[in-house]
Order: sequence, then C-alpha cells, then structure tokens
Amino acid sequence: MDCMATTNLRVIPLGGLGEIGRNMMLLEYGDDIIVVDVGLMFPEEEMLGVDLVIPDFSYLRDHADKLRAVFLTHGHEDHIGALPYFLREFDAPVYGARLTEGLVRVKLEEHRLMQKAQLHVVEPGEAIQAGVFEVEFFPVAHSIPDACGLIIRTPLGLVVHTGDFKLDHTPVMDQHTDLIRLAQVGAEGCLLLMADSTYAEQEGYTPSEQLVGEALRNIMVNAESRVIVATFASLIARIQQVIDAAVFTGRKVFVTGRSMIDNVAMARQLGYLNAPDGVIVGVEQMRNTPPSQLVIVTTGSQGEPTSALTRMANGDHRHITIAAGDTVVLSATAIPGNEQAVYRNVDNLFRLGADVLYNRAANIHVRGHASREELKIIQGLLQPEYFVPIHGEYRHLVTHARLAESVGVPQGQAFILTDGDVLEIDADSAWAEERVPASYVYIDGLGIGDVDQHILRDRAHLSTDGVVVVMATVDKQTGKLERPAEVLSRGFVDVEESEELMERSRDIVAKALGGNSHYAEIGDVNTRIKDALGKFLYDETRRRPMVLTVTVEV
Amino acid sequence: MDCMATTNLRVIPLGGLGEIGRNMMLLEYGDDIIVVDVGLMFPEEEMLGVDLVIPDFSYLRDHADKLRAVFLTHGHEDHIGALPYFLREFDAPVYGARLTEGLVRVKLEEHRLMQKAQLHVVEPGEAIQAGVFEVEFFPVAHSIPDACGLIIRTPLGLVVHTGDFKLDHTPVMDQHTDLIRLAQVGAEGCLLLMADSTYAEQEGYTPSEQLVGEALRNIMVNAESRVIVATFASLIARIQQVIDAAVFTGRKVFVTGRSMIDNVAMARQLGYLNAPDGVIVGVEQMRNTPPSQLVIVTTGSQGEPTSALTRMANGDHRHITIAAGDTVVLSATAIPGNEQAVYRNVDNLFRLGADVLYNRAANIHVRGHASREELKIIQGLLQPEYFVPIHGEYRHLVTHARLAESVGVPQGQAFILTDGDVLEIDADSAWAEERVPASYVYIDGLGIGDVDQHILRDRAHLSTDGVVVVMATVDKQTGKLERPAEVLSRGFVDVEESEELMERSRDIVAKALGGNSHYAEIGDVNTRIKDALGKFLYDETRRRPMVLTVTVEV
Repeated sequence: MDCMATTNLRVIPLGGLGEIGRNMMLLEYGDDIIVVDVGLMFPEEEMLGVDLVIPDFSYLRDHADKLRAVFLTHGHEDHIGALPYFLREFDAPVYGARLTEGLVRVKLEEHRLMQKAQLHVVEPGEAIQAGVFEVEFFPVAHSIPDACGLIIRTPLGLVVHTGDFKLDHTPVMDQHTDLIRLAQVGAEGCLLLMADSTYAEQEGYTPSEQLVGEALRNIMVNAESRVIVATFASLIARIQQVIDAAVFTGRKVFVTGRSMIDNVAMARQLGYLNAPDGVIVGVEQMRNTPPSQLVIVTTGSQGEPTSALTRMANGDHRHITIAAGDTVVLSATAIPGNEQAVYRNVDNLFRLGADVLYNRAANIHVRGHASREELKIIQGLLQPEYFVPIHGEYRHLVTHARLAESVGVPQGQAFILTDGDVLEIDADSAWAEERVPASYVYIDGLGIGDVDQHILRDRAHLSTDGVVVVMATVDKQTGKLERPAEVLSRGFVDVEESEELMERSRDIVAKALGGNSHYAEIGDVNTRIKDALGKFLYDETRRRPMVLTVTVEV
Repeated sequence: MDCMATTNLRVIPLGGLGEIGRNMMLLEYGDDIIVVDVGLMFPEEEMLGVDLVIPDFSYLRDHADKLRAVFLTHGHEDHIGALPYFLREFDAPVYGARLTEGLVRVKLEEHRLMQKAQLHVVEPGEAIQAGVFEVEFFPVAHSIPDACGLIIRTPLGLVVHTGDFKLDHTPVMDQHTDLIRLAQVGAEGCLLLMADSTYAEQEGYTPSEQLVGEALRNIMVNAESRVIVATFASLIARIQQVIDAAVFTGRKVFVTGRSMIDNVAMARQLGYLNAPDGVIVGVEQMRNTPPSQLVIVTTGSQGEPTSALTRMANGDHRHITIAAGDTVVLSATAIPGNEQAVYRNVDNLFRLGADVLYNRAANIHVRGHASREELKIIQGLLQPEYFVPIHGEYRHLVTHARLAESVGVPQGQAFILTDGDVLEIDADSAWAEERVPASYVYIDGLGIGDVDQHILRDRAHLSTDGVVVVMATVDKQTGKLERPAEVLSRGFVDVEESEELMERSRDIVAKALGGNSHYAEIGDVNTRIKDALGKFLYDETRRRPMVLTVTVEV
C-alpha cells in the first residue's frame, strides 16, 4: 500500500466540492504534499451562532512531514480565509501573486501571525519547485486582480487548476485568462484538469465587466442627485469602474463601510486602484459637495446586518441619510441564503424615497465565473485525460462533468468528487475509493471545532420554543420537595401569560414529586420533572420548550 | 369626522401590501365594511419558532357591527388561510367560487368551525349585495381553478380588485381572464383599480401553462425510468398536466405527500381533476409497475423538511427509494427564503443518482402572475382614475405604480399603500393619511398573538450562543453562598470543555458574592452573578450565552 502510494498521484479536496466556499485542495505524490488555497465558508442558516467554517486539517495533521508548500490562486476569503488557522498549526512557504499576498499580509497581521509566516510573491509565468511538484502561475480573468490558475508539473503529467475564472476579453484591470499558455499545455498533454464549476449551469458567456462600466456611467450621467453603489469590498475592478464613471461625470467619491475603506486604501497603496487627486473625499468634504456631484461606494450588497448600506436602509448611518432623488445601485448578486436580507434593504431604501437598481436587467453586475461556452473552450484547449469539476455545489459538479463528457472527456474519466474523496491516478488509470476526514470545522468566538451537531441541535431547539428552567429543592432522604419549585422561562410565552403558567408549572412539579415517600435519585427527580412539565406545557401551548432542571438536595 | 366618513370610500389593506402573503383588504363606506380575502403568511427567517402569521383584526374588532361579508378571490393559503382564526371572532357570510368554497370547507372542518360558518358558492358573473356594495365575481387565469377578480360597485364608482392573475391565452383548465367584462367596466368608468404586483418586475409576458405541458410530455417520452414531479399541492392545473402526459406516454401515476393526496382526492371529487380509471395507482400497484411506466407526483417543491420529496432526497421515504435513472422534475420556483432547502434536495437527489430538472431553462414551470406587458393591458382596458398596486413586496408596489403612471394613471393618483394605510376617496380626490393597526399576529402552537418581539429577541439570543443556568443558594441574612452554585449549559460549549468551564464558573459565582457580609437583595445577587459570569464566559470564549440565574434564600 505504502509502496503503491509512492507512484500514484493523489488529489484530495478538503473543501469547495459539493459546497460553495472554504476551497482547499491537496495534491500528494510519494513523500510530498502541496496545498492549493486554504479558504473559509460563511455558515449556512442552520449553523446557528457559528461565525465561520474552515476545512478539516486532520489528514494533513497526520502527514505534516510531507507538506511542502501552499499555493493561493487569488485573494478572496473562500480561498485564503482559513490561512490564519492553518498557519497556527503548520509550517510551509505560502506562494501567491502580489495582491493576493497583500491581502494575506493584512489578515495575518490582524492575527499576529506575520512573524511565523513565510510569504512569497510570485509573478505569473514563474514556476516554483515544491518536492516533486513544479507549480507555475498563469493569469486568469476574475473579479479580483492578480487572480491565477496553476499549471502543476507532476511525475505523471501536467495538472491544471483554474482557480476561479472567466474569459473576459475586455476586462477592466487588463488581465485576460492566458489562453495561449493553456493551449501550449494542451499541446504538451494535460493529464488532469480541475476547473471552476460555479457557473456551469449558465448557458452562453458571462458578459464582460465593460458592460457594467457603461451602465454605471449612464446612471451617473442621468441621476440628478447622489448615486450610491454597493458592492463587494474585494471587487477592486468594480470600484475602479465606479471611480472612472465618477471622474467622467465630474463627481466626487466617498467610501464607507469598514472593509470597503480598508480595501480601497490597500488597493490604492499597492497601485491597483487609480483615482486622480481630490476625487476620493472625506466626511467633511462629502458634506460640502452638492448631491448631484457625489458618488458613495459602500459595503452591504449582501444585506449584512451591520453593513453601511443596511444602516442607510434602516435610517441609522452616521453620515448618510437617504433622501428622495438618491439612486442606489446594488452592483452584486445576492448569494443564495442572503436574498431576504438583500430585498429587505431594497424595500427599505424605496420606502425612504430612493430609486433602487438591483436586478439583472440593469446590467449593473456581471459575475466572475465562466459560463458553459467558456468552460467548453477551456476543455477544447486542454483536452485533458481526466477531469475533476471543482468549486461548486454538487449539482454544479454534476452539470460540469456532463459538459466535459459532451465535449470530449472520455466516459468515466470525469470524476465527481466531494470533500474528503481521494482521487488516485497511476500511469494507466484513475479511481476514487478512499476517503479522508473532511467534516465542517466550526469557528464560534474563540472556539475552533468545539461546536458540534449536538450543540447546534440544542440551539435549534432553543430557537424554536425557548427554555424553561426549574429549580427544585428536595429532601435528601425522601426526595420530597422542600419548598415550591422556582420556574422561569425565556423565549417561550409572554410575561403576562408566563406568570400564570409558571404558577401552574410549580404545581405540576409538586405533583410530579408528591408521591415520593422513599429515597429518590436526583436523576430520577429531574426526569420526573422534565416529563411531567414537558407534557403539561405541550398540552397547554402546543410548544416544546427545552426544560432544564436543577435539583438541590438539602 | 363621522359625518364625512359616510360619504368617503375607505380602502384599508391589512395584509399583502409591502409583503408577500396574508392578503386581506377592507372596503368601508358609511356603515358598511366588506372584506376581500383573509390569508396567512409563512414566517420569515427571523420569526423563530412561529408557525404562521395572520392579519391584525384590531380595526375590524372595533367596527364589527359594520361587517357585511367576506369575499374570497381564490383558494390559496395566502388568501384563505386565516379564515379559521377570523371566523372564531366574526360572523359574516363568506362568498367564493366553487373550488375556493371546497378548500375552505376542508379547512373549517379541520378546525371544527363548519357549524358556525355561512359559506356561499358564487358563479362568475354573479353579483352579491353587501350593504352599499355590490360585488361581482369575474374569472381570471391563475395557478388554481376558479380564481376570480372582483368588480365592486360602490356609491362613488366601480372598484376592480384583480386577485392574483395572469393572461394565459391557452390555459390548461380553460379559464381565461375575462377581458371583455373588464373592457365593459372600463367603458363605464373605473374609479379604482387594485391589481396584482407580484410579477411587476418581469418584462414581457408570463408564458402559458401549455409550455409546461409540452415539456412534461417530452420528459416522460424520453425518460427510461421513473419520472418524479414535485409541485405545489394546490397547483391543480399542473397536476392535471402531469396526468395528461402520463396517459399520453402510457404511465401510471402514484401520488405521495399528505397535502398532495388530500388535494388530488378533493379535486377529483369536485371534478377539477380528470384521470381515466386505473391511471392513479396505490402503493401495491406502484410496486408492481415497471419504472419506465411510472410517474410520481409529490409535495416538497419548496424543500419543506418533512415533505415527501425531502424524504426521498434524504433516503428515508417509506415507499420510494431514489435510484440511478430516475428523473426528478421540480415544477415550481423556490419562494425567496426557501432556496437553500430546495437546492439541498437537488444536490442530494443528484448524489443518489437521479437526474434533476430544476431550472428555468427546462420550461418545467411557469408562474401564476402577470408580467409587465399583461399589467399594461389591464391598465389599458380599465383606464382607472386611481390605482393601488396590491400583493407584493414594497419594491414590487413601487415598480407597479410607476408602470401604471407610464401608461396613463394621472401623476399622484397611483397610491403606494402598505398594510394599515387608509386610502380615502371622495367625489373629488383621494388621499392616504390615517393608519389603522396592522402588525404581524403570530400563531405559535395554540398561541394567537402572544409571541412578541421580546420573545423573538430571546429566541434569537438563545439560538446564537445557547444558555447557561446558575442556581445559587444564599444565606438569607448575609447574602453569602451557602454551597457551591450549580451551573449547567445547553447549546454553548461541548460537554468536555463544558465541565471544566462550568467548574470555573462556579468559582466565579462564588467570587462574585464572596465580598458580601451584609444583607443583599436577591435581585442584586442575580445581577452580580449575571455580570460576573457573562464577562468571564465572554473573555474565555468570545460567546455571549444567555445567563439565567435562580437564587434561593435559606
């Protein structure tokens, strides 16, 4: 087994396959492992109280001696966000393009991990040796500058990992996907392609960023008052377009929202964002600028509760009060799960008198991922022997695998992996049988991985019908109640009704223990109370609050 | 004021304006009030543990003597679902078309309210006198048979309420929107139009149901194994199309999901669903039918956790085990807020090997509401003096009002009302100034309206970081702890970590009360414990569980 392993290439996704976010992929050959991306995921609805979800590092923990390097495709949170947790445990050089490195640096400084980290900036075209692997970065068009894919030379052949990409022929930041390099790889022979599946359901082509630039300019030309643009703080190209349109229409730009302010500052410093002197203004100057000469760039395109746009929509932003005549542009799509929050903002902004542009028809957003025709082009250039769809929910992976088979990947050589599956490739064939641990690791406050299904179940229970707490003092000998039980509730019934119900609950507790004239175990007392009270409360209210009992013997 | 009121028409929405669902509208003139629809709404994400939301009846409660009648436009839950709660309080005849009455009857029998109810079946074209109002039902095309709009003759002129509608020129159940009758009303003069805004953002026309029929037939012709169609149980026309396609392809139909089974039985009994003998089969016969000759109709198109489709997707449906080759058709759109649940099912069905058709490209669903060009036709036929967009989130109402103004409603005569606003119309003008109560009334278990913001806030708190319960026994005189406090938690930290943390929490409680050598109020003791423990736990975990204290004096 060990002997065999040395001549097999092993591809092990730890995140991002069968889900969106926390992208992480291992490549293993013999004694070497390299890591592509170490991302985080934002919690789903039922992950109550969870702040973040990171990949499961168990497999790496068991093979830490093999770890040679980490390669980052681009600077989005779902590709770099779990690095601080990773670097606390593992030592390895980290490679990324310039902006990616800049974003990682900011993050690691926050976590006070810069001393420990070995960060290296890589230029597109540059190749890094890491054990048996040689990893070359190639530029791709995506919604953040310096996004890259990877060409990985392995003992068995060339592996291409696209990262997140699309084929934008007129990109804003002048970064095309390097089709020529991919064609060369195709000509040399591509063993395995792993390509972005996020948009594998979308027919046709993803429109160019240029379209959005034109739309923004038209909006600013026609708006008689302020134009407020909400977008992702990491969408530097979009922010550049807003600045360009503002300059074109003689407007000043005010930036609000913490992450937006930070990212704009960082991007300007690194030269990724160009604004003529005096265009970006502070609070004082904003106040003195007529509304018709003002653009505001803000966070909150996903309806995040504490974001600047949500504050504006709720009428409690410190500096900006929405007024009739304002035009609000949501230059983003609602990520599934955020729709209610996004639309609530839209409704509230309308209520305050603003005009809100938020749907696709307005051309105010294009996405950063390749649609079906683009995916076919990549397949055509690389003609891989094996294919693994990456980055996407399970349905996207299935759809992408079918697309690949429809344009030439041999039947049975497109592998739909999910997190934890191990794809093994040898000189003749490929198969996926083994699995490694790849569970959700929850970050909640300072806790890493200590929140489990049990805790989430309890939180779900508490959220539905609240909690009832009973404190009983019983005689050590007889198990009889020494005094009326104390009963209180939260999140269960309202105060007025509560009082009467709590009063009656005390009687139920008394009755439940009344028959006892012999010694009773505390466990037994608690169970009796829980059963009797749970039944009583359900009969009375058809609700099932969590009943917690504390029994003290005296 | 009272004198004025007798010559004004008052239009009072109590639900469905500025939100989707729980549609309810009052029309008041002098001593008469009529009600259009009494619907319910399903709770939004943050309404934790709430089962249903119904309209606020406060205004009617204060004017119960004026109530003349209830008119129901169609049998969907968001238009009839709150009737059981309404009829417990109010006496009035209820009018609706035949299927609507059938659905209401089923509902009232469940609630044991049929004895009290005065239900009347109305034919389209029939007019009912209710106080000063004369109400005529006219047929509209919608996603349920017998859907109607209302033409309401008032002392000030004709009011048209469209109900939910679209203009389907080739509907499945042969029910067109009655454009001729609307044209007659337009010719006579329409004082006020209230029209469905649900789809006011959609350009063009809503496609005909016919399209779906063709798509279903193609799917069944090509599928080599079972075809499983999930849709709304109330979407009788869709179920008819499934049966028609099954008959065309020589397949049997098995129905699963409680509400689907009930609705199919009721619709067949009333003659709204036609299936040749032997086409609809039971469990035994289904088991004996080859997969290539079988269609399954199921609930669960919204990813409802206990629905039949979700059970299939999770592999725990009693009778149906998904297998490779099965084709699952989601003949419905995800209602905002349900996306995650719907897509989880899609992913799980793919995992089990099924082929899943779920997006718009497949033509497997069309919606029941009019798009922009259809809305313009209605405006053109009626040319109303005043316009109130109804049924929709606030952004839909704004969009619809602008559409109306763009095709002829005079500037300022399209009123964007939200629930509780009162539109008053007299002979010369219209205005909206007054408001009546229209808050959310939550149904939770047996409780009607007893769950308030306070309880929901507590539930949200509990759901985020769980609960910690402290029981302290203190000396009545000194306020000193008599014994170590009992501390327990749920939904906060895992059991292992919990033990050590609870141990230390006991020390914190002891320390918090240690300095007391004089009499301390119980309230004071509780506050000290809460403050000290809350701070300690936050410092240790960066979580803020709800801390509940019970202090007993001995």
